[in-house]
Amino acid sequence: MVEPAVTVYAGDQQYPVYVGRNLLTDRALWEQYITTAQVLVVTNDQVAPLYLPPLKSVLGTFVLEVLPDGEEYKTLSSVQRLYETMLTHQFHRDALVIALGGGVIGDIAGFTAATYQRGISLLQLPTTLLAQVDSALGGKTAVNHLAGKNMIGAFHHPQAVLADVQCLDSLPARQVRAGLAEIIKYGLIMDAHFYSWLEDRGGQLLAQEYDILHTMITKSCCYKAKVIAQDEKEAGQRGLLNFGHTFGHAIEALLDYRGILHGEAVAIGMMIATYLSQTMGWLNADDVARVKKLLASCDLLLPLPPEITPVQVWEAMKIDKKIWRGTQRLILLRSIGEAVMCDAPPKEQVISAIAEMQV
Amino acid sequence: MVEPAVTVYAGDQQYPVYVGRNLLTDRALWEQYITTAQVLVVTNDQVAPLYLPPLKSVLGTFVLEVLPDGEEYKTLSSVQRLYETMLTHQFHRDALVIALGGGVIGDIAGFTAATYQRGISLLQLPTTLLAQVDSALGGKTAVNHLAGKNMIGAFHHPQAVLADVQCLDSLPARQVRAGLAEIIKYGLIMDAHFYSWLEDRGGQLLAQEYDILHTMITKSCCYKAKVIAQDEKEAGQRGLLNFGHTFGHAIEALLDYRGILHGEAVAIGMMIATYLSQTMGWLNADDVARVKKLLASCDLLLPLPPEITPVQVWEAMKIDKKIWRGTQRLILLRSIGEAVMCDAPPKEQVISAIAEMQV
Repeated sequence: MVEPAVTVYAGDQQYPVYVGRNLLTDRALWEQYITTAQVLVVTNDQVAPLYLPPLKSVLGTFVLEVLPDGEEYKTLSSVQRLYETMLTHQFHRDALVIALGGGVIGDIAGFTAATYQRGISLLQLPTTLLAQVDSALGGKTAVNHLAGKNMIGAFHHPQAVLADVQCLDSLPARQVRAGLAEIIKYGLIMDAHFYSWLEDRGGQLLAQEYDILHTMITKSCCYKAKVIAQDEKEAGQRGLLNFGHTFGHAIEALLDYRGILHGEAVAIGMMIATYLSQTMGWLNADDVARVKKLLASCDLLLPLPPEITPVQVWEAMKIDKKIWRGTQRLILLRSIGEAVMCDAPPKEQVISAIAEMQV
Repeated sequence: MVEPAVTVYAGDQQYPVYVGRNLLTDRALWEQYITTAQVLVVTNDQVAPLYLPPLKSVLGTFVLEVLPDGEEYKTLSSVQRLYETMLTHQFHRDALVIALGGGVIGDIAGFTAATYQRGISLLQLPTTLLAQVDSALGGKTAVNHLAGKNMIGAFHHPQAVLADVQCLDSLPARQVRAGLAEIIKYGLIMDAHFYSWLEDRGGQLLAQEYDILHTMITKSCCYKAKVIAQDEKEAGQRGLLNFGHTFGHAIEALLDYRGILHGEAVAIGMMIATYLSQTMGWLNADDVARVKKLLASCDLLLPLPPEITPVQVWEAMKIDKKIWRGTQRLILLRSIGEAVMCDAPPKEQVISAIAEMQV
């Protein structure tokens, strides 16, 4: 039987992350987790035609909810739709929710599981690279509000994460590079060796080779599990994972979460944070060039969308969750492989760094 | 300075419960808990005129939300209203929510605090006897759905509970007796001596004497804290606190949460559970008479509302959260002072016990 690639320890909970092939149809694996007749599978209209058929072959009966695809559906309305479905089927507290899809589905299904009858079981089946390396583990669940991303949410860990690498075969290239943004982030903030390993492979990272993907996913899950074990609720260390995200979230919010992928927004945010790290005196020009080069080789050196201005991004950052005691907290790089928290960064320098990304 | 009456231990958290006079205006007490400028006070239109003025004298600036009074407002819509208010004021993750009111306000404000930006700080200031002895401590927060009570919710513990006994001076007699139902419950399920102590005082319990109230509130909080320490998330022991509640919730749902107080529904439910405990062979006729007598002396021997039938109650019980692995689980009495869990109680006997309460 398949062994967990990583075990996540979070407070008094622990759960496995499986990374491999054919996990969706691994009957022995499934039997450990399907312990109730009340199962809700949540997916979207892009993923359903691809991965529901294999899932059906191993699952017994289940209730299905197919949501429209897109970050714009990551709202309380979608969550309410799932509540209604579970209540209609008289789901009890021992029911199970299975999230089959990317980060959006994981977040909607996760928040629903977190709050239905004060919390029911959850399995995460991430089908995008981004979800496999980031959002499916760690217990963060949330939906967006027009005033900001992930404003409504809860911590709720899954029983297990099944990252089936084969699901990535069908993933559009744009989604692959969005996932690579988060993988590059782990190198930048936590491990210079891993960053070099990524640099050595360059454009090959986009080629979706099984061995490279398997290594990147496993390593990323290890980094994330390490941070969660130290700081489940993001009182300190876990905040480092937000590198590039404060800028990214602001950009996404300004675009109403349309037309840009989370990973793309994070890539822009990481480049802004890299420039700012240089301005603040930590990184030198060579380091900045290295970041630029790796992002470029993964098609992730993206401009600030032309319809928004640096000042708008600065303003939109104010509602971000990473503000603490009224002070903006940014994650910057002390060097490639090491992140630092930076409280109250000077407005002018932040806006200049954002302006570097304008076309 | 006032000392905590009880300390609640729940997982890796602990927090004090203060019981006493003049807590609302105890500046030294408040200074420990107001560590942010972003404070939202949630209350209702009945409580606001009474207790906002004293609170204003000790709090600095705060944002105020006055909701309409009543269980029918314990909905996701009220929670969304609070989200909007906090987002409009750009509240961050270090903001504080203060719940000033009864169980409904505690639940709405608590669930909002649980899910705003994945959880922010909460202070519970219960102003009803029921909230002081039960709902304000333990971390259960929830809102209702037409399909059932407390269907949407989360576990979220407060930083502290301030049970100001003086708030009860203004409490209508009907609300006092509703709170007594939960106090009597602790005696029935956990402590025969305390039950006798209540019997000795009989109708005096309704007189709102400070010493009697102080003893009852402190003892009730101790019982609840003891159960929570053993079983925070209600995997086992905590379920005993649901004595009378499965019936009570069904009755409330059938009445659309209108015209009946939670404590009143629980009192009816406890009497049904007492009859059923007799049918199942645990209680004798004398025990049943004792329960009937104490409830009667507190004006809590109430009939099943005439507009609903026993079969309807049985059907409405099916969606209750206490169902486990598809089996109805009821809490019954093995004796006065000791509760037992009873899985899959026979339908006919349950319906007969409910029918005993028909006028």
